Amino acid sequence: MSHGGDIYRNNVKLDMSVNINPVRRPEAVDKAMLRGLEKADCYPDIIYEALRNDLANTEGLQPENVIVGNGASELITAVIRAFRGHKVAMTAPSFTGYEAAADCAEVEKVFIDLKPEDDFDISAVKEGLNKLSSGDLLILTDPNNPNGRLIEKSELESILKETEERGIYVLLDECFISLTREGVKAGGREFLRKGQKKLMVIDAITKSFAVPGIRLGFLFTIEMSLAKKIEALLPEWNVSSVAEETGRAALKEKDYLEESALFISEERERVIEKIEDIACKTGVKIRIFKSDVNFVLLKCHINLYKKMLDEGILIRDCSEYHGLGEGYFRIAIRSKEKNDIFLKTFESVITEKLPT
Amino acid sequence: MSHGGDIYRNNVKLDMSVNINPVRRPEAVDKAMLRGLEKADCYPDIIYEALRNDLANTEGLQPENVIVGNGASELITAVIRAFRGHKVAMTAPSFTGYEAAADCAEVEKVFIDLKPEDDFDISAVKEGLNKLSSGDLLILTDPNNPNGRLIEKSELESILKETEERGIYVLLDECFISLTREGVKAGGREFLRKGQKKLMVIDAITKSFAVPGIRLGFLFTIEMSLAKKIEALLPEWNVSSVAEETGRAALKEKDYLEESALFISEERERVIEKIEDIACKTGVKIRIFKSDVNFVLLKCHINLYKKMLDEGILIRDCSEYHGLGEGYFRIAIRSKEKNDIFLKTFESVITEKLPT
Repeated sequence: MSHGGDIYRNNVKLDMSVNINPVRRPEAVDKAMLRGLEKADCYPDIIYEALRNDLANTEGLQPENVIVGNGASELITAVIRAFRGHKVAMTAPSFTGYEAAADCAEVEKVFIDLKPEDDFDISAVKEGLNKLSSGDLLILTDPNNPNGRLIEKSELESILKETEERGIYVLLDECFISLTREGVKAGGREFLRKGQKKLMVIDAITKSFAVPGIRLGFLFTIEMSLAKKIEALLPEWNVSSVAEETGRAALKEKDYLEESALFISEERERVIEKIEDIACKTGVKIRIFKSDVNFVLLKCHINLYKKMLDEGILIRDCSEYHGLGEGYFRIAIRSKEKNDIFLKTFESVITEKLPT
Repeated sequence: MSHGGDIYRNNVKLDMSVNINPVRRPEAVDKAMLRGLEKADCYPDIIYEALRNDLANTEGLQPENVIVGNGASELITAVIRAFRGHKVAMTAPSFTGYEAAADCAEVEKVFIDLKPEDDFDISAVKEGLNKLSSGDLLILTDPNNPNGRLIEKSELESILKETEERGIYVLLDECFISLTREGVKAGGREFLRKGQKKLMVIDAITKSFAVPGIRLGFLFTIEMSLAKKIEALLPEWNVSSVAEETGRAALKEKDYLEESALFISEERERVIEKIEDIACKTGVKIRIFKSDVNFVLLKCHINLYKKMLDEGILIRDCSEYHGLGEGYFRIAIRSKEKNDIFLKTFESVITEKLPT
């Protein structure tokens, strides 16, 4: 259940746990999906030449630097598998899927604890590198999940300089970066273009185009031996014709992503302000962590997950995240209307907990 | 290129290499695909409860006996990975994907050579079991690819009795079985229902519903420890919403499969008869191997692959199959019209090779 709650086995009227773009995808993407269905009776191109060419052109890379997968989750699993026999480091907290994939690949995990007092920024990562040796893997998420914080560009550059020198590989998961105001330019792709060898960048259309039911992820790396190793771990025809067409259309929709990011940032600030108001009015302590994207991590002594679910609203209980624990909850930024329903219920849940 | 030729990088007017059902899929399946697209903005159910329930009901098994995957190829890869540290035996010839997956999982491969003089039947398998020990894996394809021959039910039963006694696991790949006149009842599912522990049966909708661009495979096993091990090797959300809906609709279309199998068998006999006529008329020796399904393996000293491709028709060059070699070609049974175009060109290719 690592991407949110379970809407299939709970009575959920509103899902505020699923962190996908709240803005309706462009019509051109819908049309591409239908084109994909029309191609369902053909085997996809086994090397996905057209899609990889488009991605390479978009990113200023070569087609052989691009690997496509059945969602980012397939690619993450393959990357971690490629590092069997090495250590795999991840921040705590971060996306729970890394830990699951590492366990499944039987690699040794190393956790680098981020601190709540730093709003879970990645200032602890530099020191954490001392736990790793040449050939090991560091996974960073930009922006991080579940707190939504972007990595400062100068900090990223400094980490990448050090990992490259030490021979440590970095997997930079940018599945949410298109939904930040800064967009992909905030992330690691420019370092690939500049020749950073031991870097892999992962992205997907799942979150940014709100199509988790399609399944398409990309991985970029300029180190060909690594690319070949990862590709060999993927099954044949791993991308459906629908995903291929959807992805190619999505690459043309930069305006949509910029508009989405603007909407999200405005809506996020509105939701945060309202939560702060509620906290202030009621005297209930709610810690809100800094976020640059379409979800916000909260800390509160009230069991918000249970209380909200009783009202039919699903939020993400983050107690299972390594490095968090009881009292952490993630809420998604969705449409204005949905956010308003959430806020109204949230207020009543917080208020009814007050001593009368 | 293991499922046929490369239509993306050749000038192909007619693809006679791709071995999918030649009969147009039912409208209900098209509608299900569209329903799947409508659900693209939701994460699929991470445990695919509805789909697995439907599959379990269809097969007379329990939902926990069913694993779903992004096409059979993902499941085959996961199964072979689950047997790391053990030997994996496959017949030669058989689907080239097993060998690729075994190499990628770094397992020791064992080939059991089938003999052309036996029409590549599996009479050699019993003796081949002596190369395996308890805990190893035997892969059988029913009907086999590239020759299309079904395994005799009594022979299958006898092999399964012996493997169970010896503690050898069997992966029975039935991806084509729905396109034989005998259908799934010819295969291994009844042995699962009877309690065969060390058996896995794989199927997919790719071939039977001619939707290789969708991606949906199933695996059935009643041994729960094995099921858990395989599931742990699969990424989360590996089945798209489109594949899920398509699969659920496909399960209801037994009549379509029966009609398809009838058409295929009649068309196959017509094509074979015509090829025999051509061989007879021209004196060119063409060996045609016994097939029960929608493709036929030929042996001929003429390079049919190259000659046909010069005419814009792609057939499957089988020289790379372990256990075959130069001079083996696979042709698909497609629509009457396509088969006629193929036969006409085939005749002219064979005829022009005659000394004048």
